[in-house]
Amino acid sequence: MKHEGLLYIISAPSGTGKTTLLKRVMSYFPDIRFSVSYTTRPPRSDERDGKDYHFISPQQFQQMVEKGAFAEWAEVLGNRYGTALDSIRESRFQGVDLILDIDSQGARQIGEHFNGGVFIFIFPPSLEALRQRLNDRKVDGQEVIQFRVAQARDEMKQAKWYDYIIVNERVEEAAEQLKSIIIAERCRRERVLKRIGISKL
Amino acid sequence: MKHEGLLYIISAPSGTGKTTLLKRVMSYFPDIRFSVSYTTRPPRSDERDGKDYHFISPQQFQQMVEKGAFAEWAEVLGNRYGTALDSIRESRFQGVDLILDIDSQGARQIGEHFNGGVFIFIFPPSLEALRQRLNDRKVDGQEVIQFRVAQARDEMKQAKWYDYIIVNERVEEAAEQLKSIIIAERCRRERVLKRIGISKL
Repeated sequence: MKHEGLLYIISAPSGTGKTTLLKRVMSYFPDIRFSVSYTTRPPRSDERDGKDYHFISPQQFQQMVEKGAFAEWAEVLGNRYGTALDSIRESRFQGVDLILDIDSQGARQIGEHFNGGVFIFIFPPSLEALRQRLNDRKVDGQEVIQFRVAQARDEMKQAKWYDYIIVNERVEEAAEQLKSIIIAERCRRERVLKRIGISKL
Repeated sequence: MKHEGLLYIISAPSGTGKTTLLKRVMSYFPDIRFSVSYTTRPPRSDERDGKDYHFISPQQFQQMVEKGAFAEWAEVLGNRYGTALDSIRESRFQGVDLILDIDSQGARQIGEHFNGGVFIFIFPPSLEALRQRLNDRKVDGQEVIQFRVAQARDEMKQAKWYDYIIVNERVEEAAEQLKSIIIAERCRRERVLKRIGISKL
């Protein structure tokens, strides 16, 4: 039997540079799948349905909630985001490692549903640096930026129950750290022993 | 205050390629110190006193044992090997991470003396591959090789309480894994929070 796929749960306040980081690291691991969330938020110009998100209507989302189809879901700034239980189960069963990009609220729900997830929190270098990045990105207005920074401060408090923290000061270094965490977790004793078979001992 | 230095405890049966592996990885981390053991075994032609080992007489070793100067010590094939308590305490206090290259017996003693060590076990690809490597090395006679392979089998059973296992099939990959474990352990939540200060939250 194949080994069970690992879950890497990655949380980061908006503007931490998580997307860039994930893209770099994913390109290094062609065997890792990225979990595509469902959302009711409209796509940005550079986002593609089925790749960045599954874009669905509030009605469809509500139906999935009622059917218990989500492993986790949350509402942020009036939009809903969720991860389908089925896609996680499928990856685990296939022995494919999966990266979930979700906030701490969702991460906690995942932790309740599944054992052995690896929880990684990405910090901005500072809240001031975060505000600066959000400004530079020119996506959100001042009010939303203020909200996001306050939210980041709250979110970062949740890092206290995560396994790892990466401070994204320089993206190369942060990417190296994320990559290392993924490789190291695959070297955990119980996983290696399962993979090579106890017969080795 | 500086953070406390980490202890990386690395065990591997003789002939696993550990020395090559460690050299590669140490060159990547100029800030990590390598713990130099004491031994009563005579130096090989390429070994230097104070760098590879502290070579001392059986009498000197016995004195250190009696003074309780060792964090761990063991006897293998009639030679004694030990790690001085002082050198570990010093590194920890200075906030310097330390790599200890010791067998499982010694590793267990370290685990009893110090908290929070990272225990890494290196496997040969197989026992047959190990026998081959020991033959190729042309250091030991057949009887010693037989002993080392039997000892390796016993040693590998001890891996069951280590944190990580690296199977040294290809040295590049194994070195990458060891490097990753070191980087990942430095990203552990409690260590990062200590380093950046809780004020960040």
